[in-house]
Amino acid sequence: AVMASGDPAHLVRAGLLDRFHRLRMRSTALTSRLSDEDMGAQTMEDVSPSKWHLAHTSWFWETFLLEPYLPGYEVFDPRFGFLFNSYYEALGERQPRAARGHITRPGIAHVMAYRAHVDGAMERLLETCGEADLERIAALIETGIAHEEQHQELILTDIKHVLSVNPFAQAYSEVLPPPAQPGPAAGWIEHAGGLEDFGAEANGFVFDNEGPRHKAWLAPFALSTHCVTNGEYARFIAEGGYETASLWLSDGWARVQAEGRKAPHYWRGAPGEWREFTLHGEQEMDLSAPVSHLDYFEASAFAEWTGYRLPEEREWELAARQFNAGSARPMTPDGWLHPASADQANLFGGVWQWTRSAYAPYPGYRAQSGALGEYNGKFMCGQFVLKGGSALTPPGHIRASYRNFFPPQAQWQMTGLRLAKDI
Amino acid sequence: AVMASGDPAHLVRAGLLDRFHRLRMRSTALTSRLSDEDMGAQTMEDVSPSKWHLAHTSWFWETFLLEPYLPGYEVFDPRFGFLFNSYYEALGERQPRAARGHITRPGIAHVMAYRAHVDGAMERLLETCGEADLERIAALIETGIAHEEQHQELILTDIKHVLSVNPFAQAYSEVLPPPAQPGPAAGWIEHAGGLEDFGAEANGFVFDNEGPRHKAWLAPFALSTHCVTNGEYARFIAEGGYETASLWLSDGWARVQAEGRKAPHYWRGAPGEWREFTLHGEQEMDLSAPVSHLDYFEASAFAEWTGYRLPEEREWELAARQFNAGSARPMTPDGWLHPASADQANLFGGVWQWTRSAYAPYPGYRAQSGALGEYNGKFMCGQFVLKGGSALTPPGHIRASYRNFFPPQAQWQMTGLRLAKDI
Amino acid sequence: AVMASGDPAHLVRAGLLDRFHRLRMRSTALTSRLSDEDMGAQTMEDVSPSKWHLAHTSWFWETFLLEPYLPGYEVFDPRFGFLFNSYYEALGERQPRAARGHITRPGIAHVMAYRAHVDGAMERLLETCGEADLERIAALIETGIAHEEQHQELILTDIKHVLSVNPFAQAYSEVLPPPAQPGPAAGWIEHAGGLEDFGAEANGFVFDNEGPRHKAWLAPFALSTHCVTNGEYARFIAEGGYETASLWLSDGWARVQAEGRKAPHYWRGAPGEWREFTLHGEQEMDLSAPVSHLDYFEASAFAEWTGYRLPEEREWELAARQFNAGSARPMTPDGWLHPASADQANLFGGVWQWTRSAYAPYPGYRAQSGALGEYNGKFMCGQFVLKGGSALTPPGHIRASYRNFFPPQAQWQMTGLRLAKDI
Amino acid sequence: AVMASGDPAHLVRAGLLDRFHRLRMRSTALTSRLSDEDMGAQTMEDVSPSKWHLAHTSWFWETFLLEPYLPGYEVFDPRFGFLFNSYYEALGERQPRAARGHITRPGIAHVMAYRAHVDGAMERLLETCGEADLERIAALIETGIAHEEQHQELILTDIKHVLSVNPFAQAYSEVLPPPAQPGPAAGWIEHAGGLEDFGAEANGFVFDNEGPRHKAWLAPFALSTHCVTNGEYARFIAEGGYETASLWLSDGWARVQAEGRKAPHYWRGAPGEWREFTLHGEQEMDLSAPVSHLDYFEASAFAEWTGYRLPEEREWELAARQFNAGSARPMTPDGWLHPASADQANLFGGVWQWTRSAYAPYPGYRAQSGALGEYNGKFMCGQFVLKGGSALTPPGHIRASYRNFFPPQAQWQMTGLRLAKDI
Ligand SMILES: [Fe+3]
Ligand SMILES: [Fe+3]
Ligand SMILES: [Fe+3]
Ligand SMILES: [Fe+3]
Repeated sequence: AVMASGDPAHLVRAGLLDRFHRLRMRSTALTSRLSDEDMGAQTMEDVSPSKWHLAHTSWFWETFLLEPYLPGYEVFDPRFGFLFNSYYEALGERQPRAARGHITRPGIAHVMAYRAHVDGAMERLLETCGEADLERIAALIETGIAHEEQHQELILTDIKHVLSVNPFAQAYSEVLPPPAQPGPAAGWIEHAGGLEDFGAEANGFVFDNEGPRHKAWLAPFALSTHCVTNGEYARFIAEGGYETASLWLSDGWARVQAEGRKAPHYWRGAPGEWREFTLHGEQEMDLSAPVSHLDYFEASAFAEWTGYRLPEEREWELAARQFNAGSARPMTPDGWLHPASADQANLFGGVWQWTRSAYAPYPGYRAQSGALGEYNGKFMCGQFVLKGGSALTPPGHIRASYRNFFPPQAQWQMTGLRLAKDI
Repeated sequence: AVMASGDPAHLVRAGLLDRFHRLRMRSTALTSRLSDEDMGAQTMEDVSPSKWHLAHTSWFWETFLLEPYLPGYEVFDPRFGFLFNSYYEALGERQPRAARGHITRPGIAHVMAYRAHVDGAMERLLETCGEADLERIAALIETGIAHEEQHQELILTDIKHVLSVNPFAQAYSEVLPPPAQPGPAAGWIEHAGGLEDFGAEANGFVFDNEGPRHKAWLAPFALSTHCVTNGEYARFIAEGGYETASLWLSDGWARVQAEGRKAPHYWRGAPGEWREFTLHGEQEMDLSAPVSHLDYFEASAFAEWTGYRLPEEREWELAARQFNAGSARPMTPDGWLHPASADQANLFGGVWQWTRSAYAPYPGYRAQSGALGEYNGKFMCGQFVLKGGSALTPPGHIRASYRNFFPPQAQWQMTGLRLAKDI
Repeated sequence: AVMASGDPAHLVRAGLLDRFHRLRMRSTALTSRLSDEDMGAQTMEDVSPSKWHLAHTSWFWETFLLEPYLPGYEVFDPRFGFLFNSYYEALGERQPRAARGHITRPGIAHVMAYRAHVDGAMERLLETCGEADLERIAALIETGIAHEEQHQELILTDIKHVLSVNPFAQAYSEVLPPPAQPGPAAGWIEHAGGLEDFGAEANGFVFDNEGPRHKAWLAPFALSTHCVTNGEYARFIAEGGYETASLWLSDGWARVQAEGRKAPHYWRGAPGEWREFTLHGEQEMDLSAPVSHLDYFEASAFAEWTGYRLPEEREWELAARQFNAGSARPMTPDGWLHPASADQANLFGGVWQWTRSAYAPYPGYRAQSGALGEYNGKFMCGQFVLKGGSALTPPGHIRASYRNFFPPQAQWQMTGLRLAKDI
Repeated sequence: AVMASGDPAHLVRAGLLDRFHRLRMRSTALTSRLSDEDMGAQTMEDVSPSKWHLAHTSWFWETFLLEPYLPGYEVFDPRFGFLFNSYYEALGERQPRAARGHITRPGIAHVMAYRAHVDGAMERLLETCGEADLERIAALIETGIAHEEQHQELILTDIKHVLSVNPFAQAYSEVLPPPAQPGPAAGWIEHAGGLEDFGAEANGFVFDNEGPRHKAWLAPFALSTHCVTNGEYARFIAEGGYETASLWLSDGWARVQAEGRKAPHYWRGAPGEWREFTLHGEQEMDLSAPVSHLDYFEASAFAEWTGYRLPEEREWELAARQFNAGSARPMTPDGWLHPASADQANLFGGVWQWTRSAYAPYPGYRAQSGALGEYNGKFMCGQFVLKGGSALTPPGHIRASYRNFFPPQAQWQMTGLRLAKDI
């Protein structure tokens, strides 16, 4: 598929190398404002330290590209495999997830040296690999790029949590919030449904869980043109959303009661004067921006309260085909790293949008064999699909067929919702 | 719908009363061999004491039929609402689920008096209610019957656990096992798929989650004619199924390791000489009977090992339309309460069969309002659909559109699997 | 020692048999008002079901008397050893403590048959054992009597918890409370201290932990003539005791905050209108009766609040020598089973009194070898000594040298305090 | 007392300042080999990050000396009080103990600036405080010095745990182990006991829990001349110590079974080839050095196995009076930070020695009022006294009356034992 472009091999090599370099620079740029201590802390089990992300992504290149394809490659340090393997059973024992914050050594400088070692070797690989291997290598590089892009978003969501529990509550970066710009009222994108094809088409890189392409029937539906806003969610709270059991899934209501929840995770203050913890410190809340950091239960209860519902993942995909994923406000390390009014009407930006579709295999899906087969398939239980992309998603990473997934309790990700209804 | 039969009202009343009486007698018959102590114990949080089931089902009639429809009805004891409400938030505070075994009072005799009180009042209700109410009341009675039938199956699965943790390991009843009868080898029921209608049709009682009737597209598939047997599952164990991470979902593998699991929950002994705890005590294993008490992870790993897969719930439903739910071996309190060789090829008997479909609303589903709206809808998160029925399911309770559901960890239910494949 | 009485052997036999019979009858009398279900429930890990106590005490006679000393004795059921061994490692595996409520079988009737079997065999043992063994057997019978008496008190404290969590809140027995009788104000029992002998003297049965007799030096001290009353403790609450960190041990304050504690465990209502759950149901509080069901942290905080302190165990023992343990209001199954005003000034009745002495071996103490060596010694870590006795302690069970012990969190026992001070 | 020296005030000021400076330099010297990441990690709840220790000790000076006594003193940062208050309820809310590793900000440089700020202010305080205040200030400075010395030992024990969980297992420092030097066989220090005075005498600084001076009677006893060695403990293991229930306290045996314990916490390898994790990396075990990192249960089981026992704290104190605390091998940041053969016969060096005395108030003890009253008194529950000192204890910190205390589970401290017996 990669070679299908018809580009001569040397252009393919150069193009990949260029993208690889820009990718790797963005990862380190994302941590450039952080202290060594910020980069080592793990403030809850879901959170990984930034340093771990920098090392793990390098281990991924080393394991899936350099070891199998670069003749004579010497692993940087054989002990890193234990520390920086995330979850690949096929690759052996590893550091317990909850103890990633215990890895004080290797230190940051050591990890940076690891990155440089890997970068140099990747350069050699791309320059020297034979024509015969190039297609396979290029495909793996696409996977590696997509993988490191996912971790770039995680670097941001994870460091946000790390900073949030610190009473100093300093900002990841000092950027002025864009002005709140309430747009036109939300409307509905209507679709007649019917028998349609879903899942990724065979051009360009996609994750295995986005396919195979398959038929499915949808009844007529409408999807909101807008994400639900902070202002709308504040109204849900003000009108007793968190006190009304009938709106909630059973597990969600249990959580509300056990944890005394009254608002989304990063909301601070109180009704009427809500503020919000962001990567730019605590900020006044932009009531016209998409609400974020909802868990699935909150998204579901809000939808119930409106009388509408969460979309199916295929409804979202169908509606999104008319939109351009590239139109989303691009994430940059120096930019405003939070949903803004301007993102509200864009399907692809602002927040990941919970669907009511459980994360499950598409018809005909089989995980590939080998360690990379563990990338997606073994998580198809107990999670929900999210569509779109967020203010923290690297540019170029998203598309209509993309299936993000998290368990319903997840709230440290930039997750919101968009309503749907039957028509 | 009920009245659609065209029967005159007095026949409708008589028919319902007759079914009600037989239902209620079966519930008490199911506990007639148990001591008061057996009936009060709760040996894990999922398990409810038999006494609790007897009382809760009575509370259901009282709450949803007698209080609203029988003029002058006096609640048996207002404190019972707290103790025997299972999960209806709309009906107020209740006994914590994990503390159902703490309810030493009311005692059994007291609960039996409660049942008699409710039975008498139900008789009066059916005899005296006006024509205008009869249709609504008849529909609620159908719900109440289905509800108590579900609890009859739970009485058996729960008392099985209670008996199983007792070193005396006595039998619920002394019934001789049917002879093992290995049948013909399993084959495939093939189906071309296509655009079909799913969900319950509008005749006879169904639960709300079985509808609405809706279209869906299925690719061609085949469903095994047989449930997976103990013998087949024993081979999976012998060939290292519990030691092979790549077969398991991530959460399943974590469970295998954390709990040191090596076989299904009620298996005893060791490879080559497996025995099984049943309601009739520990028994030699019938290798040709359906394997039971698998959690979802075990079912999924077994399917992966074969190279086939778990079915979608709609595949199962489609295949089942050609079969007669009434052909299942009927559960009776005096019978053999365990899957037998004879059940293996029957879609509707033996074991509930895990599908890979997450329990989710059908297109267009909305829970009804009021307390009964909590019956099914609020659990649509984190569970999987099971189809079929089991050796413990009351006769007449099952049908092709029936959607049973349990979380993936559940293993105290009579759960097994039937393989599927793409064709 | 037993034989030291000089009584002829047949009188010794008859005397022991008589005491044995009265002991055994009181145990069953204590459960005569309970249903089978009451007797099977375990409402928290510390609580054992009444049925378990009845069986365990029988197992104790069987294990330590009948098996070793009655020729040809046949164990009632070899499986009972697993179920009813409490904590004797030397005697093998046993039912997990938290699962004592799962033992639905053997049922009550079966356990009663066990008791009758053991009673008969004990009779034979006492009638037939040789002169040579009689002294050793008599000593073991004293231990067995003291052991079953301890379990009689536990039957009451445990069933109190079982009844307390039941919303029916029925009474163990319907006895009218004695009239509140505020006595004269509390005074001080002064003692000059000095070098004294402590621990049990060698006449009559004592537990091994009450010895050896040893010297210790005490500074001058005074012990209150009265137990702290409900009224005094209510004042502590009213004046902010539960909100004042500086009064509490660190672990105690952590508990107050984690559990939101505001009053002793069985107190109900609110300041000014306190009521109390008792074995005779919820009752108006007798402000002049000893406060009960305090944990060590509450006792310690109260003492700190007064400016006095908890006594040392030896201070208590020294002061108690002038008093007659037999003067305590006797516990009877039909009596008032709760501290009363009348108990307040009696060192030996009403409530067990927390001392600030950790439960530790006396100088020269060594546990005996064999299973009985596990009776006391292995618990000498993390517990505090309590002195006195309670309204639930069987008559004749207590003495000045008696050392009861519980961990500081224990609050389901009838535990209160008596103040001390340096002089 | 301080002034009792008769030194003129300017000499007192100079002497205190000199000790203060040397103390503060040693604290930072102890962390000079650590990376910022090493200094921020918390690898279990008991462990505090080195950075936290450096900041907390500064907060102590600020809170107890500078704020009350230095006119015009400006608190370095008012938010530090929340982060670096350890457990003083009187001083308000604070960072949860388990979340000390989440404090990525302030960073190390910021904490070093805090230290410099405090050091400068302490200098001004000592130079400028009036004669009238000097005695009180000098006494508080003694407390502050002793406090920071305690934290110096904790810096080492805590960083040892941090390094130990890292697969890189690097050394805190690269120091060659002293040669193993088996000395003469252990003998007994005999003492006739009797009525003696215990607790600190009134010259020089002591903690409040070391007094008041009081009389107590001891029976004749003997204390071993030697700490138990690694070799002796290895024999205990080899002869089945960890498999013999009868040797263990009940809670200890439960721990052995629940955690599958087979050897002390930092032992690695297997019988016959034991190695040990030390601050100098994993080392061959010196069989003649004192065994360390035992929990109380291990110490108690070992003593039981020998037929001897753990000493009472007063036995240890009495025996120690003939020895010179100053003779212990001094801890220096550059030295061998582990027990050595040479420490074995020194009562004051090598390892803290568990006694069987629960940590309780001495007769007449009352905690002082105010926040400093929380230093020792509120922990007098559930802990045991340890005597001696360890290879990690700062020079000059120990004395015969010193009472260290830890809960029986503690094993990350440098804790061992010395046997005692009755004579
Ligand atoms: Fe990854
Ligand atoms: Fe129900
Ligand atoms: Fe006992
Ligand atoms: Fe401190």
